[in-house]
Amino acid sequence: MAILVVGSVAFDSLETPSGKRERVLGGAATHFALAASFFTKVRVVGVVGEDFLPQHEAVLTNKGIDTTGIERAPGKSFHWTGSYVKDMNAAETLATDLNVFAAFEPKIPESYLDSEYLFLANIDPVLQARVRAQMPDVKMVAGDTMNYWIAAHRENLLKVLKELDVLLINDGEAKMLSGESNGLRAANGVRALGPKALIVKHGEYGATAYTSGRPFRAPAMPLHDVVDPTGAGDSFAGGFYGYIASQPELTPEVFRRAMFYGSVMGSLAVEKFGTERIQATTRKEIDERFEHLREISHL
Amino acid sequence: MAILVVGSVAFDSLETPSGKRERVLGGAATHFALAASFFTKVRVVGVVGEDFLPQHEAVLTNKGIDTTGIERAPGKSFHWTGSYVKDMNAAETLATDLNVFAAFEPKIPESYLDSEYLFLANIDPVLQARVRAQMPDVKMVAGDTMNYWIAAHRENLLKVLKELDVLLINDGEAKMLSGESNGLRAANGVRALGPKALIVKHGEYGATAYTSGRPFRAPAMPLHDVVDPTGAGDSFAGGFYGYIASQPELTPEVFRRAMFYGSVMGSLAVEKFGTERIQATTRKEIDERFEHLREISHL
Repeated sequence: MAILVVGSVAFDSLETPSGKRERVLGGAATHFALAASFFTKVRVVGVVGEDFLPQHEAVLTNKGIDTTGIERAPGKSFHWTGSYVKDMNAAETLATDLNVFAAFEPKIPESYLDSEYLFLANIDPVLQARVRAQMPDVKMVAGDTMNYWIAAHRENLLKVLKELDVLLINDGEAKMLSGESNGLRAANGVRALGPKALIVKHGEYGATAYTSGRPFRAPAMPLHDVVDPTGAGDSFAGGFYGYIASQPELTPEVFRRAMFYGSVMGSLAVEKFGTERIQATTRKEIDERFEHLREISHL
Repeated sequence: MAILVVGSVAFDSLETPSGKRERVLGGAATHFALAASFFTKVRVVGVVGEDFLPQHEAVLTNKGIDTTGIERAPGKSFHWTGSYVKDMNAAETLATDLNVFAAFEPKIPESYLDSEYLFLANIDPVLQARVRAQMPDVKMVAGDTMNYWIAAHRENLLKVLKELDVLLINDGEAKMLSGESNGLRAANGVRALGPKALIVKHGEYGATAYTSGRPFRAPAMPLHDVVDPTGAGDSFAGGFYGYIASQPELTPEVFRRAMFYGSVMGSLAVEKFGTERIQATTRKEIDERFEHLREISHL
């Protein structure tokens, strides 16, 4: 069944210990959509500028991703410049040029309205709420956020959290949102704000899902070469949610397998710059890595 | 089969966000021996002062631990004062009073010489090597170390590493020892120094074993209350090694289960101050937590 994702479609200029890249295709919605496209139909709502060329769009449409909802606006696309040279686990933002994204007002095409799954990528919670309100009949809503919205737009964010079936954030964000330093207490604190389920990502150590039952821990793949961490979290979300949307019913077993698929897609994403690695992968390789993850974590 | 452990038997004065304790029984050999005692016979080599009273010894002997090799010396026992108030993941050392431990020269009682398993807890690598040399016929040797020996006694440590079947250290130590910041590269770098297997502990995120095959990841138990992290690593090692020593053969499956038992004992250790929680546990509770860990990590 179809996922509608709303979020950024952008260009990233990146520096990591492995090298530099200028203006590679990126953005949360891009990374999410590509990862999810291996599992289910994906529709994107976003905005780009005149620098978003047919070759960029083809990266999405080649995977069957519906780009009807990507609006073209006069000017340049969102451009983020960041460095991981000092710390591979925390991007240093060197420049954020919002460009056409500054006035982004998500518009949902008529043909998207029957999407059963909604993913609110990391954007202004006011926009997340507006999109949510336009899709009252979806079966499931998942979303992401970041430290900036937690710190400076908390009231708006709290309204969105109450609407979420699943929130996906990282350790630091869970601690910031809850005010708790212990992982389990932080998770309970965040869930008390609304999300029915919470997935906390631990980078190279995997991720933990907190639901009404016991927590569930998914391992991360031990990787010899982490080339570019950008988009790892969005790719995790895409694998997780894409797998769920591909299944007839959300059972606890499906949820667990979705965590593993999230981990697989996150691990692939970081092995090359930008979207290169995910573009080149196959469902066969994904399923092999899934089995690899099972093997390295099961008794 | 019996494990001989050589290491510190000490008193700890601790401050954590949960409170303060003065001079509670601690030391690497103590934590290790108590955790391992639930699985197999344990023999301790260490040194204590006149402040080590029958009630302290009873903590060990009540669990069937052989204390013949704990030497009594004139003066006071090793006393460590530390605080976790600023950071639960990194102890701040406020005072290290070596006392009788400063002149520690391990002596192995005749009755210990048939021990099949040797554990070299975190002490001066010169002493670790000396004990290793006195036990040439053991079936397996495992050991621990810390940043101090890695930085200031590297040459001595490197000699010990070549003798180890299993080295158990944490992320920071693996990175320091190898000079690599990537987890997998760091592990490969450490294994190249000698240890046949390496276990890297990730605190609240579990632990990874690196052997000649694929890595293996064991989850940590999500805990609502971490009262005192002291001895978590030694308790992990005790559970891991104790389980191995209890089995007729070291198969890959035994190794994996041992990782889970290590994680179980580490999680119990931190739930109360000092050795309180491990003293109070039972094999039944340990096995229940083992099953809990399986449940929260298996598809």
